[in-house]
Amino acid sequence: MKSGRLKHVTIIGVGLLGGSAGLAIKARYKGVHVAGVGRRQASLDEALKVGAIDSACLNAAAAAGQSDLIILATPVCSFATHLQAIAPVLKPGAAVTDVGSTKAVVVRIAEEILGRGGPFVGSHPMAGSERKGPAFARADLFEGATCVLTPTASTPAKMVDRVEQLWLGLGMRTVRMAPETHDRAVARVSHLPHTLAGLLMLLPKKEDLALAATGFRDMTRLAGGDVEMWRDILMTNRRAILDALDTLDESLMRVRDLLELGDAKGIEKLLAAAKNRRDAFNGANS
Amino acid sequence: MKSGRLKHVTIIGVGLLGGSAGLAIKARYKGVHVAGVGRRQASLDEALKVGAIDSACLNAAAAAGQSDLIILATPVCSFATHLQAIAPVLKPGAAVTDVGSTKAVVVRIAEEILGRGGPFVGSHPMAGSERKGPAFARADLFEGATCVLTPTASTPAKMVDRVEQLWLGLGMRTVRMAPETHDRAVARVSHLPHTLAGLLMLLPKKEDLALAATGFRDMTRLAGGDVEMWRDILMTNRRAILDALDTLDESLMRVRDLLELGDAKGIEKLLAAAKNRRDAFNGANS
Repeated sequence: MKSGRLKHVTIIGVGLLGGSAGLAIKARYKGVHVAGVGRRQASLDEALKVGAIDSACLNAAAAAGQSDLIILATPVCSFATHLQAIAPVLKPGAAVTDVGSTKAVVVRIAEEILGRGGPFVGSHPMAGSERKGPAFARADLFEGATCVLTPTASTPAKMVDRVEQLWLGLGMRTVRMAPETHDRAVARVSHLPHTLAGLLMLLPKKEDLALAATGFRDMTRLAGGDVEMWRDILMTNRRAILDALDTLDESLMRVRDLLELGDAKGIEKLLAAAKNRRDAFNGANS
Repeated sequence: MKSGRLKHVTIIGVGLLGGSAGLAIKARYKGVHVAGVGRRQASLDEALKVGAIDSACLNAAAAAGQSDLIILATPVCSFATHLQAIAPVLKPGAAVTDVGSTKAVVVRIAEEILGRGGPFVGSHPMAGSERKGPAFARADLFEGATCVLTPTASTPAKMVDRVEQLWLGLGMRTVRMAPETHDRAVARVSHLPHTLAGLLMLLPKKEDLALAATGFRDMTRLAGGDVEMWRDILMTNRRAILDALDTLDESLMRVRDLLELGDAKGIEKLLAAAKNRRDAFNGANS
């Protein structure tokens, strides 16, 4: 998006992602006004203090009515409320996007509220940290990371381009895919792994943790993530996560059989297949 | 162990752990002769080249007969062969230990071959890396890490002290526990997590991996570990791993129910419990 065209952006939710989007937009698009919308004045004050937003507002509609671009950056389950609030005031030609980690439910709700062929384009900028709140926002959070865009058959090309240009302008790589394709993939590479990190953290007895080393630390790091955000992610991608969970459980039961039978060859074959895939993945991504 | 008393050490298996033990002993105990035993001359040559051993031998008995201390550092499933080879030649007063990640099977085999009340003391120095082979050996690999010692009721106190002094001398913290207690704990904090890292690596379709980020990378790092070593670890700790696996599977099925029922409160409670535990763990260990 050329900065000549982008004049006013509203970010609803000024936590880590919303705050970082504000900092990045203000750093990359000189002269753009970034309005922040939040539930609590304290968060808005913090976002103002770190320079993530130019103005603060507790009312989404008041800010969004002036914007060329609105970014939803609250937990996914509050999207419907915000979309209903801004729907009546949107400027013609304004685009609406989000930073949510699930896309099928979000896109369906947004198209119901803003209309099919309307201004909504789903985005999933794949960046973040365990940190929470505007105090941890960083202008470079998105740089070099991937942003998935999930337009549907009815999304206007102009809106997709506008949203895509935003993320490209913040230094991201973009890929486009259907919302359902996105959700099935992230269930396997993110949502189920996150769930398992939590279950693994709860598995040992307290005294066992004295023997926990780097491997356990790495495998449970995700369990430190924000509870409210992850509850919403898991709840809005239930079907895809259940499918992934069933596939994992089948492989877990296969390991169970191999151990029960003392099948060393079978265990070795499984470990070797996993190692081959990991080494290839590591080589491709390092 | 005072260096005056330690004169000759045999390390059977000169890979990452054996090689690192050699380098560390030579750095900390001046004048001690470290004999390396291996299956392949190439590994022994490499260990000689990096200075991890002073002499190399393809025959365990030839080296061990002169030693005050013998360290088994091969995969666990070859321990019986090596113990049988060295049993007839052990010097009176010599101690035998190992660096294996499972202890109940190892201690049982060692006591069968070397005798109850004999010279064997199980050790599990909890240090390592995904790297394999003497070329990656480091004199400081053990520094600051924990070593678990697993004496039984019949292990002579003198032998336990001697082996404990070795690891303390290499900069480790030591803890003592029964072999079975050790195995149950590491099944939960290490062996099952390792198994899951492999299953998670095999779960996504190839195209899904394009969306894999830091979280997936962290959770699958362990899948890159040495196949032969991990096969032996899993096979020699089958019972404890199966118990841990059943407990994990129960919690996985509970998550399945919560997702199927759309129980957001239940999911939130689970995520919060895991986060509390992870935050406490992280605080205690960082």
